[in-house]
Amino acid sequence: MTGPIGRKRWAIAEGYIPGWSHGPEPEMTSHEAVCILNAGDQDAHVEITTYFEDHEPVGPYRVTVPARRTRHVRLNDLVDPEPIPKGIPYASLVQADVPIVVQHTRLDSRQADNALLTTIAFAADQ
Amino acid sequence: MTGPIGRKRWAIAEGYIPGWSHGPEPEMTSHEAVCILNAGDQDAHVEITTYFEDHEPVGPYRVTVPARRTRHVRLNDLVDPEPIPKGIPYASLVQADVPIVVQHTRLDSRQADNALLTTIAFAADQ
Amino acid sequence: MTGPIGRKRWAIAEGYIPGWSHGPEPEMTSHEAVCILNAGDQDAHVEITTYFEDHEPVGPYRVTVPARRTRHVRLNDLVDPEPIPKGIPYASLVQADVPIVVQHTRLDSRQADNALLTTIAFAADQ
Amino acid sequence: MTGPIGRKRWAIAEGYIPGWSHGPEPEMTSHEAVCILNAGDQDAHVEITTYFEDHEPVGPYRVTVPARRTRHVRLNDLVDPEPIPKGIPYASLVQADVPIVVQHTRLDSRQADNALLTTIAFAADQ
Repeated sequence: MTGPIGRKRWAIAEGYIPGWSHGPEPEMTSHEAVCILNAGDQDAHVEITTYFEDHEPVGPYRVTVPARRTRHVRLNDLVDPEPIPKGIPYASLVQADVPIVVQHTRLDSRQADNALLTTIAFAADQ
Repeated sequence: MTGPIGRKRWAIAEGYIPGWSHGPEPEMTSHEAVCILNAGDQDAHVEITTYFEDHEPVGPYRVTVPARRTRHVRLNDLVDPEPIPKGIPYASLVQADVPIVVQHTRLDSRQADNALLTTIAFAADQ
Repeated sequence: MTGPIGRKRWAIAEGYIPGWSHGPEPEMTSHEAVCILNAGDQDAHVEITTYFEDHEPVGPYRVTVPARRTRHVRLNDLVDPEPIPKGIPYASLVQADVPIVVQHTRLDSRQADNALLTTIAFAADQ
Repeated sequence: MTGPIGRKRWAIAEGYIPGWSHGPEPEMTSHEAVCILNAGDQDAHVEITTYFEDHEPVGPYRVTVPARRTRHVRLNDLVDPEPIPKGIPYASLVQADVPIVVQHTRLDSRQADNALLTTIAFAADQ
């Protein structure tokens, strides 16, 4: 029970950054997050690639999650190599050099009261 | 870490297209989506079969997800062989000829503010 | 790709039937559902056992899901051996004699606008 | 079909206790829960460790789930070794000495109507 927990490759088939928001920023801003847990003792170098319906994938977006840390990456905030457009469907592949755990969450505040969704991402057998 | 990610057979036991909506179309229209990621280098030929409580399955609905693309299929929009009735329980089986990743999402806007749910579908072992 | 999809034992650690509702019945009644897909060619004889915080398990509740059918069991509606109390935490074990797929969903309409949650249940390795 | 169901190590990459609430207590208080099912015949001694973005992990928080019982642990209520701060991202590792099933749920009532999310946690292969 002492090895690192997780996998090195994860997929999120759902992706959609709502086009508008309702309520105080930044808590209630509509957003999508890739929540990453690195419970191991080595830093995780993570690459996120985004897939779309009508053009080639974009990325990788590079994120480091230090050893024994979590990082909740707001996909809205990624800018390099380019921002993810709002209001269109996309999907994500998350790859790391050490085992991590990935969970996908959206807060949608387009209407007066917010809605939430989450799921553990799909872990590749690797 | 270069092989395609996913499985060829997926199941979604929950299905329910809300009977009405509230808010601007098409963003806030109540809907269910099967979100498919094909991160591989071959096109995925996908077949969706729907299961009901009181009659034989319907389908397959055929969808192609090109290589390195995602497709968010709104189940409300499927018409061939026949539309999925609103307001009744159903379930779905999703099969492809190459590995894909499948996620199920619903936006329910029957009341003034929308609700959301999602989950990665169940992946068959093979 | 022709074998039945699923597992014979599933667990749902979350369970809570909201104590009140808001909106038209039966669509907007607060409820929890165990959504079962039996995509195989044999009827599934399903047993649901409920677990609580302060007393022994209750059940089994028996449900049959015919071959090639789904059934969305509203846990609120179960009465034999006894109704599940509202407003307290519980959990469920779902067992069948053939492979099935199990998904857990709640509609919570205690406040003016409904909230939703869902997840594919945990599948035992069996 | 008689062995205990579950795994001994689980991870939840998403964690966030909303900073405020709306509606009657305690039902509508914003909270996060780790829902644990111990369907086996031995008590489960559970340790929850929390991970953060900017400092070392905290814990373990110790919880006992007796044999054939469930326990829905409100993370807001944990105080030993220290309360989990509200309004910041965290993640959790859940370990036990016998197989358990772990599900993560949040009720967010920061706005007038509550939102919900849930997912089965990630189960280590162990």
